[in-house]
This record gives sequence, C-alpha cells and structure tokens, in this order.
Amino acid sequence: MKAKVYVTLKSGVLDPQGKAIQHSVGLLGYEGVADIRQGKYFEIALDPALDSARARETAERMARDVLSNPVIEDYRVEVE
Amino acid sequence: MKAKVYVTLKSGVLDPQGKAIQHSVGLLGYEGVADIRQGKYFEIALDPALDSARARETAERMARDVLSNPVIEDYRVEVE
Repeated sequence: MKAKVYVTLKSGVLDPQGKAIQHSVGLLGYEGVADIRQGKYFEIALDPALDSARARETAERMARDVLSNPVIEDYRVEVE
Repeated sequence: MKAKVYVTLKSGVLDPQGKAIQHSVGLLGYEGVADIRQGKYFEIALDPALDSARARETAERMARDVLSNPVIEDYRVEVE
C-alpha cells in the first residue's frame, strides 16, 4: 500500500525558492511562466497488512504531525 | 493554465533524506512504514494565452532541463 503526500506553502506565504527558479527560467528564455511555487513530495510505502482506513489514518497523521509545518504549509494525502 | 511537476529520485538511487525521515517516524511510534522517499513538487502557473499543447511542451522542457537532474531523477508533468 502506497501513500503520496504533497506539501505546499500556504497561498499567502512567500516562496523565495520558487521566485528564484522563476527568475532563472525567465533568464533562460522560457516564456509565459507567470509563477512557480516549490513544494515537497513524499512517497510512503506502507505495510500491506494495514487495511485501507488504517493506512490512510497513519499517512494523514504523519503528514500533519511530521512532514508539514501547519503554520505555513498545507498538505494533501493520496492513498492507493 | 497550471502545470504540476513531480521530481523523484530514480529507484536505484539512495535517498538519505527519506531514510532519515523513516528512522524518525519509527522512533516517534508510527508503525507499518516500510519506506519513505522524498521528492520535489512544483506548481507552475502558465500564461493563459498559451494553448494546451504549447503549455505542456514548455512544462516538459522546463522539467527536463531545469527542474530535474536526469542522471539521478525522474520527472512527471501534469497540465490542467
């Protein structure tokens, strides 16, 4: 069982890393790039013995308590 | 128009950061976590004037040439 966790900065939070990438791709000649924001992505392999509800609960708890900073970041969890 | 780029380490490549997180969640008492791998995630806002094919082409090229290191990383692009 596999969980994917996406962590992104909340919309009001400045993202200097994203801005630096946006500036660089502009210098490199890419056109039409209005904004870039960088986030984090985690692939979590869970014990196949866990049932689906238990796996989602573990992944959600891990995303909220360990993988993201709820003050400045949002997270999204997919379990498959 | 929005593109999402997911960059992950190729499967044979060691991921010390993922291993460190896995070790930590083990110490914190999370059970059933077999493996964690960390990747990067980019949200790219593209000029709405670009048509869909052009937007995908720009995002693919950016993912391949700027956002990922093709020696050790894979990337995936979604345009919506």
